[in-house]
Amino acid sequence: MISRTSPSKIVLLIIDGLGGLPHPETGKTELESAKKPNLNRIARDSLCGLIDPVSPGITPGSAPGHLAIFGYDPVQYHIGRGVLEALGIDLELKPHDIAARGNFCTVDDKGIITHRRAGRISTDRNTVLCRLLSNITVEGAEISVLPVKEHRFVLILRGEGLSPELGDSDPQQIGQAPKKIEALSPQAQKTADIANEFVSRARNLLQGKTPANMVLLRGFSRRPHIPSISEIYKLKPAAIATYPMYRGLARLAGMKVLPGGESITDQLNGLHRHYAKYDFFFIHYKSTDARGEDGDFPAKVQAIEELDEALPGLLSLDPDVLIITGDHSTPATLAMHSWHPVPFMLKSKWCRPDDVTEFSERACLAGGMGRFPATEIMPLAMANALKLDKFGA
Amino acid sequence: MISRTSPSKIVLLIIDGLGGLPHPETGKTELESAKKPNLNRIARDSLCGLIDPVSPGITPGSAPGHLAIFGYDPVQYHIGRGVLEALGIDLELKPHDIAARGNFCTVDDKGIITHRRAGRISTDRNTVLCRLLSNITVEGAEISVLPVKEHRFVLILRGEGLSPELGDSDPQQIGQAPKKIEALSPQAQKTADIANEFVSRARNLLQGKTPANMVLLRGFSRRPHIPSISEIYKLKPAAIATYPMYRGLARLAGMKVLPGGESITDQLNGLHRHYAKYDFFFIHYKSTDARGEDGDFPAKVQAIEELDEALPGLLSLDPDVLIITGDHSTPATLAMHSWHPVPFMLKSKWCRPDDVTEFSERACLAGGMGRFPATEIMPLAMANALKLDKFGA
Repeated sequence: MISRTSPSKIVLLIIDGLGGLPHPETGKTELESAKKPNLNRIARDSLCGLIDPVSPGITPGSAPGHLAIFGYDPVQYHIGRGVLEALGIDLELKPHDIAARGNFCTVDDKGIITHRRAGRISTDRNTVLCRLLSNITVEGAEISVLPVKEHRFVLILRGEGLSPELGDSDPQQIGQAPKKIEALSPQAQKTADIANEFVSRARNLLQGKTPANMVLLRGFSRRPHIPSISEIYKLKPAAIATYPMYRGLARLAGMKVLPGGESITDQLNGLHRHYAKYDFFFIHYKSTDARGEDGDFPAKVQAIEELDEALPGLLSLDPDVLIITGDHSTPATLAMHSWHPVPFMLKSKWCRPDDVTEFSERACLAGGMGRFPATEIMPLAMANALKLDKFGA
Repeated sequence: MISRTSPSKIVLLIIDGLGGLPHPETGKTELESAKKPNLNRIARDSLCGLIDPVSPGITPGSAPGHLAIFGYDPVQYHIGRGVLEALGIDLELKPHDIAARGNFCTVDDKGIITHRRAGRISTDRNTVLCRLLSNITVEGAEISVLPVKEHRFVLILRGEGLSPELGDSDPQQIGQAPKKIEALSPQAQKTADIANEFVSRARNLLQGKTPANMVLLRGFSRRPHIPSISEIYKLKPAAIATYPMYRGLARLAGMKVLPGGESITDQLNGLHRHYAKYDFFFIHYKSTDARGEDGDFPAKVQAIEELDEALPGLLSLDPDVLIITGDHSTPATLAMHSWHPVPFMLKSKWCRPDDVTEFSERACLAGGMGRFPATEIMPLAMANALKLDKFGA
């Protein structure tokens, strides 16, 4: 490896769902509409561009979007639905734990699914039912059932010789019975038997608890082995994120998860407190994505403006390398993640600035990086931090 | 796969040989010289860019140029010369048929080639001679000899246990004797023997038929297995092309070939008639390439203008995704296919438009896609048609 340690510091700010689409009336995107003097000032001194998190046309989930920026091929390092759900409740999975995403659902007298989300029962009710299901014991695995939100839960199977190569019980539509969980390889048969036994006991325990009288399981998976950022880049990495799923993704990549706080100001205060102890910081800003998913254009604009106002708290540290980008686009007009490339900028003493004077989708297109794969960000960050040796003689 | 079906429609218009080079006097390319108000208006609302059909510097034949746009790696899916010639006469090859491109040629008393194209005999004469050669029977294969144009024909060998791994008999130069066809692998020996026997019998039958007194064979090949567009993208694809070779390429990719008509207006009328029944349409416009190959700059400009005038017939359908590009460049100044990247635009409700206001080589360079591989077009088309699910959790 050509990485080397040095005192320089890298700060990576991921603005979730940053990219957008033009408002039909103004023709301007959320980022183009926002007042953002700080972001624009940084852009003037930065190397700018647009990233493709996975590849053109592909809409990334949160996991591939982040892993790509952290330098991992998002197609090679696949995070299963069960593992992601576990990360989302700050659960530290052991390497051999099998996690599945669970739904409480409603079935009729004949066992046919009539509601896949049990009418979205309350999280309190969910918690009570998960406690009930946690009493289930099946030989061969230690079983945990942990509530998430509304109808969602995580099932964890822990034990020797288990395998995640299992099909779903969730047919993903109503009008059918839950499927029997199938072993997708011979060595997964034991785990399939355990999972099916769990479902059968759960059905019995939930009888009469309508609307939550049955469970659906999908996305059986195990934490992938990901070489840590310290191994690859010889960095001491830390993460400051308010949402559990992003803390979980950071933990997967080997980052130390620092206390997050509630607001971006809290997060930046945390950065100041821990600045001396680490040399790589991932800061996650969530509101932009949430407002985009709501389809609320003005609220997403406001979320960008709030971030911009907080930025002096970051700039005062004058990190050697500052990167600001997003994990994917979440245009308010689409109200969902999208495939559009995401604005990117990197400021360092050693970047070669371009003519971009505004941080926006259109302006970054003319930036020095042009359009490029997100997996190229980490080598670029390392180079600008003077933490990479020459390649070859 | 993350493709899903939906009612949205994709129209892909390929303007053959679209890209050009500046005229020495005006400094403007064919596309820049043409009056094309409709193409320019579409460009204003589109995501623009420049495609590399294969890779920078590589001049594509028609097959790789089209396959790349259809989403297939043109290096992996190689179409042999023989197969291409068969596609060019609307021949439906069976999966195991072996096709070779044939030339009638002239040899002297000693069997040395004096003219590789037999003085370009007429197509009528070719047809008579092919009928003569079709009488040849060799044990082990059913033989068909089909006229193409002037001195060109297709040889088809059909039978059990045949192999296309054969060398050429055509030395591609005069002053030599035709080569013996060699088996390039042990299992091709039987086929080599059959092919050599065919050549020997053809020589006998053609004695005295000077200038067409011998045949040359090259490009023995078999139809490659290409997963169909319906398999990969869950689309119902159709093609409207006036030239047989493009209909053949569309058929290879699993498209339904619709009646073409003579002019682009006929083709667009066909599109209207069949619009309800398919959700992906490939329309092929040939004249631009033909005029470029002629080296006729003004005629290529005029071909572009004719297309532009016909476009309202396409725009009236308001397809959910409209893509306009070319399979390669054919600059009139070069009078041949070239390696230059090709203008591209994609219009949809969900594309992120850029600042491009003209459809031309120079203008598209500043487009939102920049320069990109043609194989990325299909995922982009699918995304804009909202026919792709999110990748990863």
